[in-house]
Amino acid sequence: MRTKKSNTRPKTPTARVVEKNKPVILITNDDGISAPGIRNLMEAIKDIGKIVVVAPDKPQSGMGHAITIGEPLRLHKTHHFEGIESYSCSGTPVDCVKLAVDKVLHRKPDLCVSGINHGANHSINVIYSGTMSAAVEAAIEDIPSAGFSLLDFSIEADFSGARYFARQIVELMLKTKLGKHTVLNVNIPAQPLELLKGIKLCRQAYAKYQENYVQRNDPHGRQYYWLTGEFQNFDKGKDTDVWALANNYVSVVPVQYDLTHTTYLKQLKATWKK
Amino acid sequence: MRTKKSNTRPKTPTARVVEKNKPVILITNDDGISAPGIRNLMEAIKDIGKIVVVAPDKPQSGMGHAITIGEPLRLHKTHHFEGIESYSCSGTPVDCVKLAVDKVLHRKPDLCVSGINHGANHSINVIYSGTMSAAVEAAIEDIPSAGFSLLDFSIEADFSGARYFARQIVELMLKTKLGKHTVLNVNIPAQPLELLKGIKLCRQAYAKYQENYVQRNDPHGRQYYWLTGEFQNFDKGKDTDVWALANNYVSVVPVQYDLTHTTYLKQLKATWKK
Repeated sequence: MRTKKSNTRPKTPTARVVEKNKPVILITNDDGISAPGIRNLMEAIKDIGKIVVVAPDKPQSGMGHAITIGEPLRLHKTHHFEGIESYSCSGTPVDCVKLAVDKVLHRKPDLCVSGINHGANHSINVIYSGTMSAAVEAAIEDIPSAGFSLLDFSIEADFSGARYFARQIVELMLKTKLGKHTVLNVNIPAQPLELLKGIKLCRQAYAKYQENYVQRNDPHGRQYYWLTGEFQNFDKGKDTDVWALANNYVSVVPVQYDLTHTTYLKQLKATWKK
Repeated sequence: MRTKKSNTRPKTPTARVVEKNKPVILITNDDGISAPGIRNLMEAIKDIGKIVVVAPDKPQSGMGHAITIGEPLRLHKTHHFEGIESYSCSGTPVDCVKLAVDKVLHRKPDLCVSGINHGANHSINVIYSGTMSAAVEAAIEDIPSAGFSLLDFSIEADFSGARYFARQIVELMLKTKLGKHTVLNVNIPAQPLELLKGIKLCRQAYAKYQENYVQRNDPHGRQYYWLTGEFQNFDKGKDTDVWALANNYVSVVPVQYDLTHTTYLKQLKATWKK
């Protein structure tokens, strides 16, 4: 028993007392722990909660909801961000969330935020996106979450608008105590902050890519293929994320992971009964 | 002009004439082109259509909707299946579908089928599954599709029940001309055919995994982690895939890729307005 001894220990510093009441926020991304986007996200919200970063040790764009099954994972403590506990992980963004909960935090954080992604994750991109899959994984594990993406691939991108709105949305999420399965897909136009008109709640636009693989020969004369494709938006609705972004709004789409197509389920029950 | 000459060429064999009217069916999977499951799927439906196989050259389980962006893809013609055009691809299941449409078929097939997966893809597994993500990718590209999974991981698994129902469902899909965005998630219990009670149209059960990473040290004393986890079903509904499978039904869940959480979108509009 150490009860008595604990009475004589040095007073807990005030900062730690405050920190104990702060929400625990897990940050991850898919561009890797060295990407400017994740630093900007961390900087934007670091005073709001107790921040822990667990992010891939290399770029993991387009990894979707991939998990690492057939090989082990590595997790290394890093010193990327001064004063912030951070780890790099050899796996996918979804692996990062799973490992963070089980082996780093040993608890569920109050919120998980992913990004800020370098590039758009609106419309059908949500399904290929490692950034968004990390957020979806958090929600599966009862952790409200949001993925943030800036419509600018450049390493030199201006994150000021994205930072402003990421902070606003994180504050809103904590304040309004959204359900534990909440996932928000947030995209920010590549515009200076002063041109951004605000947040718009949207649905996912119906769009896709028209693939066009570039075919080349290697120095040994063997063919290989590079994925390229043209984005095609078939959706003229003004309630979509694509419309909102084109009109300088920050788009927010609540995302679900129950993939049952309920309308189609009813139709199929009628059709196949015949 | 070769018009005249063509009149004198040998008569087109009847088989080819028939084949011209047959539907073109693309087969892929996530266990790799050498897995017994894909051979069983091919065998089950090979007389129904003109079959083309494009499948990963190695196991790709748990790859979700990952695509290969940062490196090129290889595609090799193989002779795995006698009399069937087949290719192995260095990428993910989703890459296989994209490359098949753009560079192998040069058209959209009439149907895409994925599997037969070695192991369950019911409930939340749909989101991690390479098998199902290939099927979803096809539907995004306007190709009706289905993913088939047998609840048996064994390389020696008995596919007779799975083969029977895969064929039945493929015939049903072609006959009832389902919409081009149809994706069916089909799971088959690991039971002898005579014990299977038939097809049940279901919704995705609400379930998840409780992660529990196994922590080990490598020979150099450095830690690594293996993903393990316990499946947890929170859903007692009798209209779910988990219930159907436990009761020896083949579960069929229609799947969507519009991830907008419409109910939550309405709630959020009300909450955030305040």
